[in-house]
Amino acid sequence: MDAITIIRAKRDGRTLTPEQIDWIIAAYTRGEVADEQMSALAMAILLNGMDRAEIARWTAAMIASGERMDFSGLPLPTTDKHSTGGVGDKITLPLAPLVAACGAAVPQLSGRGLGHTGGTLDKLESIPGWRARLTGEEMLAVLRGTGAVICAAGEGLAPADRKLYALRDVTGTVESIPLIASSIMSKKIAEGTGALVLDVKAGSGAFMKTLEDARELASTMVEIGTDHGVRTVALLTDMSTPLGLTAGNALEVREAVEVLAGGGPADVVELTLALAREMLDAAGLPDADPAAALAHGSAMDRWRRMIAAQGGDPDAPLPVARERHTVSAPASGVLTALDAYAVGVAAWRLGAGRARKEDPVQAGAGVELHAKPGDTVTAGAPLLTLHTDTPERFEDALAALAGDAIRIGPEAGAGVRPTVLDRIS
Amino acid sequence: MDAITIIRAKRDGRTLTPEQIDWIIAAYTRGEVADEQMSALAMAILLNGMDRAEIARWTAAMIASGERMDFSGLPLPTTDKHSTGGVGDKITLPLAPLVAACGAAVPQLSGRGLGHTGGTLDKLESIPGWRARLTGEEMLAVLRGTGAVICAAGEGLAPADRKLYALRDVTGTVESIPLIASSIMSKKIAEGTGALVLDVKAGSGAFMKTLEDARELASTMVEIGTDHGVRTVALLTDMSTPLGLTAGNALEVREAVEVLAGGGPADVVELTLALAREMLDAAGLPDADPAAALAHGSAMDRWRRMIAAQGGDPDAPLPVARERHTVSAPASGVLTALDAYAVGVAAWRLGAGRARKEDPVQAGAGVELHAKPGDTVTAGAPLLTLHTDTPERFEDALAALAGDAIRIGPEAGAGVRPTVLDRIS
Repeated sequence: MDAITIIRAKRDGRTLTPEQIDWIIAAYTRGEVADEQMSALAMAILLNGMDRAEIARWTAAMIASGERMDFSGLPLPTTDKHSTGGVGDKITLPLAPLVAACGAAVPQLSGRGLGHTGGTLDKLESIPGWRARLTGEEMLAVLRGTGAVICAAGEGLAPADRKLYALRDVTGTVESIPLIASSIMSKKIAEGTGALVLDVKAGSGAFMKTLEDARELASTMVEIGTDHGVRTVALLTDMSTPLGLTAGNALEVREAVEVLAGGGPADVVELTLALAREMLDAAGLPDADPAAALAHGSAMDRWRRMIAAQGGDPDAPLPVARERHTVSAPASGVLTALDAYAVGVAAWRLGAGRARKEDPVQAGAGVELHAKPGDTVTAGAPLLTLHTDTPERFEDALAALAGDAIRIGPEAGAGVRPTVLDRIS
Repeated sequence: MDAITIIRAKRDGRTLTPEQIDWIIAAYTRGEVADEQMSALAMAILLNGMDRAEIARWTAAMIASGERMDFSGLPLPTTDKHSTGGVGDKITLPLAPLVAACGAAVPQLSGRGLGHTGGTLDKLESIPGWRARLTGEEMLAVLRGTGAVICAAGEGLAPADRKLYALRDVTGTVESIPLIASSIMSKKIAEGTGALVLDVKAGSGAFMKTLEDARELASTMVEIGTDHGVRTVALLTDMSTPLGLTAGNALEVREAVEVLAGGGPADVVELTLALAREMLDAAGLPDADPAAALAHGSAMDRWRRMIAAQGGDPDAPLPVARERHTVSAPASGVLTALDAYAVGVAAWRLGAGRARKEDPVQAGAGVELHAKPGDTVTAGAPLLTLHTDTPERFEDALAALAGDAIRIGPEAGAGVRPTVLDRIS
């Protein structure tokens, strides 16, 4: 086995053998295959593709590069959700305690935001005292005690993926569906969940801009999960406009708590319930009633216990940004578009996101929406409120919202899209 | 400018701008673009190609990464030859002094062998005392004194190419015509020759196995030379069987001296004269008579002066291998094939070539042919003689010659191919 033969095989459009895939992932993890060889292979995979068997094996080899968690000792079925990332996507926050309240265990290993999309851990860290890093024992204790845990993934899960992802990020080889799908699924499968629901977003604020690409990514991930014995289903959901009425860390926690209290924006409630039903169904609990768990406060109760178990104070006031700036509607009419990517970039520039992994985020920064596509707006009335601790950033944030990010037209009902676009199982 | 944007552009099939090409070659040479980024770009170029303008600019950027030689102070026109490499290709040895004897200056910077193809410097180093490494001043002095010099290229010529070539070698990105052509031409143009004749070989013993590929490489190189103001012409020549009757260092020097003495195998003489006429024509000396220079000994005189000027003794006996093994004709009939690649690998395994850059070569090792395709052979009569200092290598060398490397059939005239297949200008 040698790297050059494997690179040439994929370069020339051939199918890699299981032995070649196992060897190159293991040798790369050990540092015996050089970064410059792996990046050439990644480019060849990006341009020439991998078939279903290759993708399944590639994923298995990345899982085998590290440890694998095991929740088989729990008395409850485990079920997990993964979103491909979007703007205002706070769904994990109400969803995990909601599904726990309905009788499944939710071990949710989450990430931080990078670029225009936020990260679940950044959002929760705006709650005073809340800790993202838990030991394996602490994680199990929270899961046993409250039915749900949201924490940072340990370094030991799929180290090959960690190394390969960092390499792809600097070599223009991120945008490959086989590599994206195997990266996500290797971590999720290594986390040891029995069932997995994927929220694959399509639109300007998502990684996949078109429904076709999102559908291909979703199908590929469902195939990988199925091939690895994990009950996997995917929802294709809209990311042409932000989810809910907030994008930013503490702003989104506030909205999540509203949902847990039985209120909140309709699209956030709809998607939370849709994903909860899928997770419960995949966990073998098709008769659970998540809408009732929201209405009766049992989900809120789980949330408070989960936050407290990780050192957070669910009653503490959330941080508020020092400065605000209002964007008014430029005309009267129907809001036909409020571009997710533009809002995400604006929130990022206001301080809600980071440009580099090591940068801090502002807990209070972000964008608050006062209307959603389809709503009627009046010229001069507030449309958005920008929040930041650093008002010199308003200008850059406003620049992101210029052009046709905000569109107002005469047509009633225009611009409204369903939240859930399709389901793939 | 940043590497990822440039990689993505080529990955997505776009044309790189002149500024992008200049920037990435310069930044890579300075170490500011990482090897893993350059290998991803090389793979994208291999799979998506470069157009004529991109290739010309890529070559120019590699030339600009280092120094450029200048022979404009010489009273003679300069002309150079480059071969893409083959088995038994000793043509540079008689050719450089022959063209010098006809009135042009030949500054021939050459390389060493790697794999199954030999290197001109390795061959000349079998002459006792001869030195390949000259300073710039020494090189000019030999060129002024004898009209020809064959020496190692300095480190300062096209350092970007040196770095990129080493990277391509370990990342499966060698086999790209734009990258091969720009690599060769950047060095040749940086050497400052006024005219250049390319010997592009096609066949089993060549880098390009098919005539189509060789033609594409030749056309690309002729275009690059033309775009850089160098009078460039290419001959497409056969490499399905070894050139002449020897493959190996001292064995080939002996054959080259036979040609300079007015004898030697017909194909070596034919190709030497064809290339000499092209070089002289490109140098503005169309009336020169290289056949007469061979016949009358003036080329031999130049050879002796050139070898002596670099410390070599043209009268010293050449090294002879300690052991020999004869391969007999397995049948009587017409030799219809004697595969160049098989003979090259056998010579390599006998010690004439090296597996790694730092390995030494055996001066006396190699393969001697007693017949060429088209010749009539008799069962049991000697067909090849293998030479080595390390007889334990005979077995591996014989294995390379097994299978259908040697074919004998009934058809008179079968297997004979013209030496020069086509001309591209």
